[in-house]
Amino acid sequence: MGFLHHAYYFTYFEIGRTELLRAAGGNYRKMEEEGSLVVVVKTQCRYHRPARYDDLIRVRTKIVRVTAAKIEHEYRIFRGEELLAVGEATLAVINRDGRVQMTPEWMRSPSPPN
Amino acid sequence: MGFLHHAYYFTYFEIGRTELLRAAGGNYRKMEEEGSLVVVVKTQCRYHRPARYDDLIRVRTKIVRVTAAKIEHEYRIFRGEELLAVGEATLAVINRDGRVQMTPEWMRSPSPPN
Amino acid sequence: MGFLHHAYYFTYFEIGRTELLRAAGGNYRKMEEEGSLVVVVKTQCRYHRPARYDDLIRVRTKIVRVTAAKIEHEYRIFRGEELLAVGEATLAVINRDGRVQMTPEWMRSPSPPN
Amino acid sequence: MGFLHHAYYFTYFEIGRTELLRAAGGNYRKMEEEGSLVVVVKTQCRYHRPARYDDLIRVRTKIVRVTAAKIEHEYRIFRGEELLAVGEATLAVINRDGRVQMTPEWMRSPSPPN
Repeated sequence: MGFLHHAYYFTYFEIGRTELLRAAGGNYRKMEEEGSLVVVVKTQCRYHRPARYDDLIRVRTKIVRVTAAKIEHEYRIFRGEELLAVGEATLAVINRDGRVQMTPEWMRSPSPPN
Repeated sequence: MGFLHHAYYFTYFEIGRTELLRAAGGNYRKMEEEGSLVVVVKTQCRYHRPARYDDLIRVRTKIVRVTAAKIEHEYRIFRGEELLAVGEATLAVINRDGRVQMTPEWMRSPSPPN
Repeated sequence: MGFLHHAYYFTYFEIGRTELLRAAGGNYRKMEEEGSLVVVVKTQCRYHRPARYDDLIRVRTKIVRVTAAKIEHEYRIFRGEELLAVGEATLAVINRDGRVQMTPEWMRSPSPPN
Repeated sequence: MGFLHHAYYFTYFEIGRTELLRAAGGNYRKMEEEGSLVVVVKTQCRYHRPARYDDLIRVRTKIVRVTAAKIEHEYRIFRGEELLAVGEATLAVINRDGRVQMTPEWMRSPSPPN
């Protein structure tokens, strides 16, 4: 009811990258069971127009930069053709001791079209 | 249980600025009833160390920039003396039609010490 | 990462009823613009098995009771064929003064199959 | 801005019980490191009046039933003297394999006055 809370967009970004990783074909669950964890190092969002209750929205996720240790995503939230918000997140992979690992190859694949 | 979800830090930032505004002595409720609304235009967070369930954390909020139309806050999340995260938010005040208003004087006051 | 927070299931229930209302063909947005609001009077959840990050889940929503003033939904969360949680919510429609209204006819329609 | 989302009350309940456990003097962190986890088995909330942005609210938590395997809490959310919501949660302690454990003695202590 009313407008979507601004913190909630980060949950949509998370859904976007989860689906991107799923589409990339990697086995995230297995990776986590082996002790590696994807963490968000930095994230941001710029809000253009508010999303409201009952809006159907779409998240477009793409990889914008990849290094050995980090992956940067950009997220665009649309309602129809209207751009509501643009976000970014920098991800790293850490092991059980909290040390940064190389990002696995399958995570760095280019975005599938959507 | 486990680590605090990264999106949740933005809720702590919101608590920080709500308390800052409360301390500044303005009447936010009255402002809202008169049709003005504070909106987040842009926000970001950089994560240094994870907060865990049952941690006691502290949010330090300060105003870092003020213009006629915008207020920028910085938030620092601490566990004891340890810095966990640093965030920023740019706020604007809009009216019922979504038009940007002058920020009220009381919102621009310097941060109270904490 | 890890298990889904227990409070989050209520957001899935909300998604379930939003889609049910959408499928029922009513115009929720118009109703809200005319000053009526759907509020949750009571809700509960019983957790059977935890949902984990990256699980694909399904929400099955059905209307279990309807009176002039209230609508009761039941929600079942599944991962594949496995039942993870069962929830209920009692909804009422209120006007701008917070008074309970008759629930509109289109909200009381039986659940579409899914 | 506006009303507090109904799912968010469960986060306040969680804060209530976390503080109750902290006041009971047990070492939750140590318990978790030894592989035991507190899980919510069932929870509910009945909403009486809406909380709004900038309200100062108070959570009163008390233990209402204790068995070898379960602890039931009741939560009351107040704004001043006004009762906004009443919730309940049934908690269990599980081990790494998901098996239900005896609840530790310190968790069953009567509520401290507040």
